[in-house]
Amino acid sequence: MNRPIIILVEPQLAENIGMVARAMANFGLSELRLVSPRNGWPKKGAHSAASGATHVLEGAKLYDTVREAIADLNFVFATTARERGQMKRVFAPEPAMKEAQQRLGTGQGVGILFGRERTGLENDEVSLADAIITFPVDPKFSSLNLAQAVLLVSYEWYKLATGGALPFDGGRQSPPAPREMVTSFFDYIEAELDAVNFYPEDKKPTMTRNMRDIFHRLEMTEQEVRTLRGAIRALAEGRRLRKP
Amino acid sequence: MNRPIIILVEPQLAENIGMVARAMANFGLSELRLVSPRNGWPKKGAHSAASGATHVLEGAKLYDTVREAIADLNFVFATTARERGQMKRVFAPEPAMKEAQQRLGTGQGVGILFGRERTGLENDEVSLADAIITFPVDPKFSSLNLAQAVLLVSYEWYKLATGGALPFDGGRQSPPAPREMVTSFFDYIEAELDAVNFYPEDKKPTMTRNMRDIFHRLEMTEQEVRTLRGAIRALAEGRRLRKP
Repeated sequence: MNRPIIILVEPQLAENIGMVARAMANFGLSELRLVSPRNGWPKKGAHSAASGATHVLEGAKLYDTVREAIADLNFVFATTARERGQMKRVFAPEPAMKEAQQRLGTGQGVGILFGRERTGLENDEVSLADAIITFPVDPKFSSLNLAQAVLLVSYEWYKLATGGALPFDGGRQSPPAPREMVTSFFDYIEAELDAVNFYPEDKKPTMTRNMRDIFHRLEMTEQEVRTLRGAIRALAEGRRLRKP
Repeated sequence: MNRPIIILVEPQLAENIGMVARAMANFGLSELRLVSPRNGWPKKGAHSAASGATHVLEGAKLYDTVREAIADLNFVFATTARERGQMKRVFAPEPAMKEAQQRLGTGQGVGILFGRERTGLENDEVSLADAIITFPVDPKFSSLNLAQAVLLVSYEWYKLATGGALPFDGGRQSPPAPREMVTSFFDYIEAELDAVNFYPEDKKPTMTRNMRDIFHRLEMTEQEVRTLRGAIRALAEGRRLRKP
């Protein structure tokens, strides 16, 4: 029980439960609890919406009440959009998942309650929770749907749990070229540009330095130096070949 | 142009465009650009899915190509799920929005490309971008739908732009009670418990301190001290009244 448990209270549409399962699976969560799903359970419509995350649906546990669904947990968040007049700590999703991570790390069970599609959680249900999660949304357009709310919380969880690991980090497959290769490249460029009188005499030092700045900023790899050097040579020699 | 611009490349379903508009509006974004929507534009299906965010749809600008859609911008991110063999910087959504925020702050125009529902962006389209955004997802369940991808990026934007402001922050409407009120409360509890021989003689000092720890942890407000004090008095006096 080292990851947060997602608890849906009286979810109505099977499709939403499926999308919740998918959102959880996107971010490495798999423990789902359902309190009195409105239209029964299991429900066919959930599986297609779950888009491959059927293991989450199949492992979903059913409960009659919120109280029973949270009985074995040590700390419970309730997601609410509106202030409920309760003296509870209110967390944004990221700090909430940090709190969850600390507690899970010590062996506590942590759950997050999400309410009904239309009406959210009842005040009595919120009062069974230890703390509130609310989302930083534009007050003029504040409603998130159920799967989106679960998505955002699950996303914040996964970022923390994986230390922000990405599927790939692209970029530098090779290190920047050794300085001598780069300096030699500068010599080559400058010689070719000199040969075509590119530099006005008085501006040559400045323009030379500016161009070196451009290439320095590239942090060219060895391959890139070779590519650019080859392109410049092709341009220069193409020109020389075309001379009458 | 002080917020990132969302650019959808050949989006197919009107409903998805609507949900993108809604996701943007949730998080304070409103500039949408559409490159060759597959089924034409405007499209009716978008409006109902936009769920109130029609201003985003109505302000959406149309373009024939990605090149034209990004022409006036200074920095463009391309969202991709797979590595594209290009030596570009790869950002997670949060660092990307930090980069965006810095650039927007200096007056640069920043756009984010999102690809087709089924096939994403083409490599040539990615090559028109300055950097890549990819999402930290579980590789076993890595696909996010278009509106969810826009949601996550927009969410990270809004958190940064608002400094993490929440619609409400609940909690402490009143400060903790003054120490004298709390100490007086301890005196009262301890007297009542003493009167019913709650404390075994040898354990009294430890139990007293432990109970004070419990109440200290509450950081009770004045109202809470009054409430608890009243409850204890009711229990004690109810007992006294019940004495034969």
